[in-house]
Amino acid sequence: MLLTAKKRYIGTLSGAGFCGVTDGAGMGDFFDGTNNEKKQMSVTTNETGEAVSLKRKKLKKIGVLTSGGDAPGMNAAIRAVTRAAIANKLKVTGIRRGYQGMIEGDFIPLKSSDVGGILQLGGTMLKTARSLEFRTAEGRQKAYQQLKKAEIDAVVVIGGDGSFTGALVMSQEYDISFVGIPATIDNDMYGTDYTIGYETALNSVVEAVDKIKDTARSHGRIFFVEVMGHEAGLLALTSGIACGAEVILIPESKEQIEELKKFLKKGYKNRETSGIIMVAEGDETGGAVKIAEEVRKKHPELDVRVSILGHIQRGGSPVANDRVNATKMGVAAVDALLDDQKSIMVGLNNHALVHVPFNKAVKLNHSIDTHLLDIHRLLNV
Amino acid sequence: MLLTAKKRYIGTLSGAGFCGVTDGAGMGDFFDGTNNEKKQMSVTTNETGEAVSLKRKKLKKIGVLTSGGDAPGMNAAIRAVTRAAIANKLKVTGIRRGYQGMIEGDFIPLKSSDVGGILQLGGTMLKTARSLEFRTAEGRQKAYQQLKKAEIDAVVVIGGDGSFTGALVMSQEYDISFVGIPATIDNDMYGTDYTIGYETALNSVVEAVDKIKDTARSHGRIFFVEVMGHEAGLLALTSGIACGAEVILIPESKEQIEELKKFLKKGYKNRETSGIIMVAEGDETGGAVKIAEEVRKKHPELDVRVSILGHIQRGGSPVANDRVNATKMGVAAVDALLDDQKSIMVGLNNHALVHVPFNKAVKLNHSIDTHLLDIHRLLNV
Amino acid sequence: MLLTAKKRYIGTLSGAGFCGVTDGAGMGDFFDGTNNEKKQMSVTTNETGEAVSLKRKKLKKIGVLTSGGDAPGMNAAIRAVTRAAIANKLKVTGIRRGYQGMIEGDFIPLKSSDVGGILQLGGTMLKTARSLEFRTAEGRQKAYQQLKKAEIDAVVVIGGDGSFTGALVMSQEYDISFVGIPATIDNDMYGTDYTIGYETALNSVVEAVDKIKDTARSHGRIFFVEVMGHEAGLLALTSGIACGAEVILIPESKEQIEELKKFLKKGYKNRETSGIIMVAEGDETGGAVKIAEEVRKKHPELDVRVSILGHIQRGGSPVANDRVNATKMGVAAVDALLDDQKSIMVGLNNHALVHVPFNKAVKLNHSIDTHLLDIHRLLNV
Amino acid sequence: MLLTAKKRYIGTLSGAGFCGVTDGAGMGDFFDGTNNEKKQMSVTTNETGEAVSLKRKKLKKIGVLTSGGDAPGMNAAIRAVTRAAIANKLKVTGIRRGYQGMIEGDFIPLKSSDVGGILQLGGTMLKTARSLEFRTAEGRQKAYQQLKKAEIDAVVVIGGDGSFTGALVMSQEYDISFVGIPATIDNDMYGTDYTIGYETALNSVVEAVDKIKDTARSHGRIFFVEVMGHEAGLLALTSGIACGAEVILIPESKEQIEELKKFLKKGYKNRETSGIIMVAEGDETGGAVKIAEEVRKKHPELDVRVSILGHIQRGGSPVANDRVNATKMGVAAVDALLDDQKSIMVGLNNHALVHVPFNKAVKLNHSIDTHLLDIHRLLNV
Repeated sequence: MLLTAKKRYIGTLSGAGFCGVTDGAGMGDFFDGTNNEKKQMSVTTNETGEAVSLKRKKLKKIGVLTSGGDAPGMNAAIRAVTRAAIANKLKVTGIRRGYQGMIEGDFIPLKSSDVGGILQLGGTMLKTARSLEFRTAEGRQKAYQQLKKAEIDAVVVIGGDGSFTGALVMSQEYDISFVGIPATIDNDMYGTDYTIGYETALNSVVEAVDKIKDTARSHGRIFFVEVMGHEAGLLALTSGIACGAEVILIPESKEQIEELKKFLKKGYKNRETSGIIMVAEGDETGGAVKIAEEVRKKHPELDVRVSILGHIQRGGSPVANDRVNATKMGVAAVDALLDDQKSIMVGLNNHALVHVPFNKAVKLNHSIDTHLLDIHRLLNV
Repeated sequence: MLLTAKKRYIGTLSGAGFCGVTDGAGMGDFFDGTNNEKKQMSVTTNETGEAVSLKRKKLKKIGVLTSGGDAPGMNAAIRAVTRAAIANKLKVTGIRRGYQGMIEGDFIPLKSSDVGGILQLGGTMLKTARSLEFRTAEGRQKAYQQLKKAEIDAVVVIGGDGSFTGALVMSQEYDISFVGIPATIDNDMYGTDYTIGYETALNSVVEAVDKIKDTARSHGRIFFVEVMGHEAGLLALTSGIACGAEVILIPESKEQIEELKKFLKKGYKNRETSGIIMVAEGDETGGAVKIAEEVRKKHPELDVRVSILGHIQRGGSPVANDRVNATKMGVAAVDALLDDQKSIMVGLNNHALVHVPFNKAVKLNHSIDTHLLDIHRLLNV
Repeated sequence: MLLTAKKRYIGTLSGAGFCGVTDGAGMGDFFDGTNNEKKQMSVTTNETGEAVSLKRKKLKKIGVLTSGGDAPGMNAAIRAVTRAAIANKLKVTGIRRGYQGMIEGDFIPLKSSDVGGILQLGGTMLKTARSLEFRTAEGRQKAYQQLKKAEIDAVVVIGGDGSFTGALVMSQEYDISFVGIPATIDNDMYGTDYTIGYETALNSVVEAVDKIKDTARSHGRIFFVEVMGHEAGLLALTSGIACGAEVILIPESKEQIEELKKFLKKGYKNRETSGIIMVAEGDETGGAVKIAEEVRKKHPELDVRVSILGHIQRGGSPVANDRVNATKMGVAAVDALLDDQKSIMVGLNNHALVHVPFNKAVKLNHSIDTHLLDIHRLLNV
Repeated sequence: MLLTAKKRYIGTLSGAGFCGVTDGAGMGDFFDGTNNEKKQMSVTTNETGEAVSLKRKKLKKIGVLTSGGDAPGMNAAIRAVTRAAIANKLKVTGIRRGYQGMIEGDFIPLKSSDVGGILQLGGTMLKTARSLEFRTAEGRQKAYQQLKKAEIDAVVVIGGDGSFTGALVMSQEYDISFVGIPATIDNDMYGTDYTIGYETALNSVVEAVDKIKDTARSHGRIFFVEVMGHEAGLLALTSGIACGAEVILIPESKEQIEELKKFLKKGYKNRETSGIIMVAEGDETGGAVKIAEEVRKKHPELDVRVSILGHIQRGGSPVANDRVNATKMGVAAVDALLDDQKSIMVGLNNHALVHVPFNKAVKLNHSIDTHLLDIHRLLNV
């Protein structure tokens, strides 16, 4: 019996049911293409109770790679891809150092035991790298030859939008199927509510700011804390709410600078003023160092400090959600390949697994939940 | 301009859009009643950019209490309720020790600064208690007199289904408005995807099992780890996936015992067998101690141990999601009172705030995501 | 130039300078024997600035094993032993599953890269086991034959007193040199201030009790928390001070039960009484379950709960001190073998590395620092 | 019976028994003065078993303040001072914001319950500040008048060497007794093995570097990680050992730069080179940013990054040792005042409590344990 009979799991993304992405205008044609018919979950339960997959294609061996910035949970995804493939009688090859390793044939066979004990580890056991060579036709040709030589028919790419673009280009040139799993701490991709690593990064930021707050309060200091997120303010906004930050500066809202001015004016009158000002690295104020410099000039009476959290946001043992979501998406990626899908990213949308075509799964910032900004302002009484 | 013009935030729960609760049968009449018309988010932004609320009722003072088992994030909810109320010119009274404190008039005034610095603390600053007296008509009458004496018109109840039942009964007898915020580590309430405390408990379990796994592997031992969750297996199932548990025993699935037998048979042949068997406290096998005892008898060759995680699952600093969700729901609860709502629980459904009538928000287990069980079986290769 | 010229590092243990072990009576003859002359640190710095060791014996290959209960930091010790040996041109063999693996010839070669990335992991990569067979002459003969076959001349044993006793017996029968590194979370060995794993376990207990305290306070409950430590109360006492426990029950002090009675009497008058009662598993009251049962009978008005921390105390990533001490002792153990030492345990005494003969390094409880009990009583105002 | 009869607890510091401070030259006259006679622990046990203190002076009320940089464990010390004083029938006044609060009379009474629940919190509930005014005679006169007005006879100062210098100057001008408790994450004071906060900071660094290492390995990157410590390399060296750093740059050793060159030369040949280079903020290379810049120029083939850990090293819940040591030293400080001591710092030396005169307890770096550098070099095979 198909699972999908009891539970719609991998669904089609249609404009109506898709919330969280507010730019509704382009939604109609956004998720069409390969995704336009109902997907079914091909994990099934046979009569003896064992989970098997209906193989609709004669896949024999798949590759798996991680690409772009590392994110906690990538190892959990590698494990899920490897074991789901083996459970379906596929062979699995680990491609090390992303596309650069693909070009160089830096391959290792993966057995079930090779991915034992990695579920809870940060980083990626397959390593990751940027490859300029892969952007050239020659580079991709070499990569294709290496895959053919190793008899790899399809590849699961764990990474961000740049990694999927690379896959898309190559898939248009050569008969290799690519399926993507979104993994980036920025959580800035269309079509999925979660990207692997975001929740761990969020909690790492929160733990760090909790510590900084101890010092801020003890000294009556104002800390400008800069967090990652590229051009997006999501991480800064969410962690700011979670930490009770006094002000949150993000690129998506220009009004926040007024909040800062109000806070500083209030602080001027109170010698014990302390506070956390969250600053998204992409904020147009120019980052924590620059804005702190300006504040110091205008308010020499305040004790102003800067903390740039940097790479401690990126590593560490993944939190439960990143492990579970990575596992779900890893299984779904193999399932998609068995289902003869290609050039799609698996994603999670309102807790349901979905397929998103690569050409849509680009890096477009989730619009900020402006309600959170309203809440923040409201609670700052 | 109303926020809701740009973003549907507090929506109506209708059968169609409501996923995550699979018992669709009763859905039609499940969320009718007070929830049957569109709710609007009454937090608005006036022309000068300040967030204000349209007060539709002449509320002057509200009470807030925590009731039932403590859950990490309760303090974050208390803070949000208090500050959102003050921002709306309401006075706030903290009712200590739940309904028992209501009966005894154990009240403290709450100013904005009283809830400063509690966001990141586990437990509840208002304490919580069970009250047998509140189950009697006399008890509730005393409680009402205390509220009247203190000029409290409405109460925000942070707790589980038992707490809401109490509120419902009292609201039918006296003219006190109650609004609920779901807080329980069991995440076992209809109408909301999240209850405050669940995600922190989940991560506490995962951290604990990661540690136990070190020992299991080092010694070739099999650990039966019992986790909380009352009659529900959600916590056991999710943490089991997150930790790579070998077997997961939950009340919702009788087939899992076969998985255990298979695992043990395999282990019999391998002297280095180690494994984590997650056991939901409500599992019909009778809990970790009982099932381990039986396994020891049948497999004296195996080194079998038991670990009952107990109360370490309940406390601790809340993870980011519990803080953010508690803050959202705290603001929404005050908003609902201002909006003249009563006898409803605020909840989060597919990331949107919703209202659920108390008589529906009872403790009905989320049906288990059986797809997770399939995934688990699949990866156990 | 010898390091020891600038810094006395490995010293002799003499009665006078040895504090922390209060049973001074037997001290005179306690550390005589092989330890009676000044040891020198044989790590030296040659003229080109490289650290080298003077090899005084023609050692070629050493084995390393972990034995007894696992303790966080064992991996750090394995890494240090392996790399210090390789730096001294020795080959290294990992003996898996302790003495049982020695008997079965369960050996793996260890290169420098094999121990990369294990420093921060809990448990032991070499696994550990109990071996009844090793207690027999036949077992030890097999073990010797395996070692000879593998050309292993000397073995570093990472474990507790039972492990060292085994080594001592075998060393008296066969020409194998054994050097021990103390690793047990109980910190219950003569001759060393620290055993690997104790500090990590201590912090795991403290973190767990911090969480339980959230619940105890929120509910006005009294928790009896049972911690490990065999017959010793050290872990219970120290964690009790660190957590602000109301009462601490340890086998070393019979007066503590009076403290409990006083606390309960006080609690009787106060409905909000909450408290943490730390109970050492070896306490003569019979453990947390039994004492809680009695208290419940006598004080039915109190809300009494039990939490047995169990195996979460044993695993986890080692804290900084356990990593550093394991590294120091690992290097010192190799150094001792090169220095032709045998049947000694390396230890840390007042921050200095010392050698302790196996026949002295038995499991004798550190006498409890009763000053801590006085402090505890004093602060309970 | 005096405790000291059974256990020498507060001892005299004499040159011979004092290890850990290697600059033996000045030791003879270093700890003379008020400390030249045996101290006795004045906590005693009377016949009914209660701990009491022999009051040798008619102290009635003491003040307690925190000064200088905040350090985790300061709250535990405040709690111990407050409760030990109350247990001895003294009144206690909290002086907020260090000496500046003393000048301004920013005082709060402290009862036992006021310091409940602060043991595990980072920062300082009394806040801390720098005071330029206290450096003037006028400032100190104001401070004295405030103390007199509040009837405070003696003050416990929790802080670093600057704080003790201030206390020393004031004690020479006015009849106020000061006793100090060393609290600084730099652990850079003569006369005590531990200062409150160091161990927590050490573990915060280790956790952060563990995370950064995930990324370093995944990308084949070289991270220069800058840690606090003022002019001292202790924190960098110890955390470097604990994290398996490839190179450790500290001001105390000029040879380390050669280690860096060797490492980079090796890396040049290996495209997967990754590594952690710990840099003490006081290192003469000029800090992580500067040295990384130079390395980037010479080795453009390497992927070099910088992480300045900053203030996350300073806050957070104290580890067990910092809590226990803070508690011991808090009790000892009160005891010293009752014992009519003044102008001394309490400290821990080889696990024993000691008194160190303020004029000796200046900030002189612990000489680095160069053995750790040798170990580091040895293990880098």
